[in-house]
Amino acid sequence: MKNKITVIAFDADDTLWVNEPYFRETEERFADLLEDFVPRHSIMAELYKTEMANLPLYGYGIKGFMLSMTETAMRITMGKIDPIIVEKVLELGKEMLNKPVELLDGVEEVLKALHGKYRLVVATKGDLLDQQRKLTKSGLDHYFHHIEIMSDKQEKDYQKLIRHLDCKAEEFLMLGNSLKSDVLPVLNIGGHAVHIPYHTTWVHESIDHTIEHPNFYEMESLAEVLPKLIE
Amino acid sequence: MKNKITVIAFDADDTLWVNEPYFRETEERFADLLEDFVPRHSIMAELYKTEMANLPLYGYGIKGFMLSMTETAMRITMGKIDPIIVEKVLELGKEMLNKPVELLDGVEEVLKALHGKYRLVVATKGDLLDQQRKLTKSGLDHYFHHIEIMSDKQEKDYQKLIRHLDCKAEEFLMLGNSLKSDVLPVLNIGGHAVHIPYHTTWVHESIDHTIEHPNFYEMESLAEVLPKLIE
Repeated sequence: MKNKITVIAFDADDTLWVNEPYFRETEERFADLLEDFVPRHSIMAELYKTEMANLPLYGYGIKGFMLSMTETAMRITMGKIDPIIVEKVLELGKEMLNKPVELLDGVEEVLKALHGKYRLVVATKGDLLDQQRKLTKSGLDHYFHHIEIMSDKQEKDYQKLIRHLDCKAEEFLMLGNSLKSDVLPVLNIGGHAVHIPYHTTWVHESIDHTIEHPNFYEMESLAEVLPKLIE
Repeated sequence: MKNKITVIAFDADDTLWVNEPYFRETEERFADLLEDFVPRHSIMAELYKTEMANLPLYGYGIKGFMLSMTETAMRITMGKIDPIIVEKVLELGKEMLNKPVELLDGVEEVLKALHGKYRLVVATKGDLLDQQRKLTKSGLDHYFHHIEIMSDKQEKDYQKLIRHLDCKAEEFLMLGNSLKSDVLPVLNIGGHAVHIPYHTTWVHESIDHTIEHPNFYEMESLAEVLPKLIE
């Protein structure tokens, strides 16, 4: 692998730092607010349905999640919502936006070891300001040559990124926790991809699929990538 | 001017297409929902106060505006909000996100005339997905070498953009409707700027200031820039 790769792109949420558990935690607290109306599993199902319906309009990120929670709460209470619930939803979202950044194990060591040997970039979805703020809070920004905040991670989005970085697909390696967003589209356009599963994955990102591909690697932690990339 | 400039950056909202009037229109409809509680001017003042307080957390764009309208409505009704109002706020925001893109006069002609002679870029604030969607809807994207969606437009943000475009400040020309965001920071870092005022300006973007600077030009329409840039 190390002979070909020149650019290494890192997914951010749940690859560099904790993210999905904050969404799960917020969903549980959202369900606490509404369980007098319908069972918790129905609240979760309604919320997911609303998020998927709004995704083309809102995109990924916390602000869209806040708007979808509000909409779901309105629907579940059938127009009889206690204003306190709307207030709580706004509070829950602001808390998420203000969360400290908690780096995953080994992230800084890996970046330090690869820095200067490869062009390192961040390739992440989500709200522009929120992702920039997390990167600043993380203290990792000086390791990266380029930060790409993408509205989606499909083949065309990676093709655009690779053109922008002026490298060939076969020189590009993507590391991330989502097979659907970080691995499959990259393999499909001729790049390399390492999957590092995280214990919590949003159902929208999970796929039921086994991948066998010469450019694909499955690893248990980010640190395992080092022997493949450094002598 | 034409001897030095190599890159021309266009602001998008209210420079390439109509934007601010949609916000003003939505604010009026928001005030319609709440005028039984307090006078319209107080509703507007409360909304602006909320937007400014949330700006560091939400950034620019329609989703943050929707969340700030919801928060303002909660505060104005002092916990006695009619759920219909929350529903209407979400509807108003979704309508904004779904608006067609209405190009301003002369935009396409100017881009066509400058295309191939300069590197043309878009430099805009706002929600990532929303701005990308507007650019696609506008049919203008093929004129641009690069699209930069910025979380803010301060000197450091322009410095980053210029580094990224690999040009010198004195080769960079910014065109836009905001003295605060499109003109002053660009002049301050050594670039050129053209101000094309739009009839509606958000109070947050307006400054009480007369600019005299050798790199500054005031024009009434985008088309006036052509004689300065093309033989």
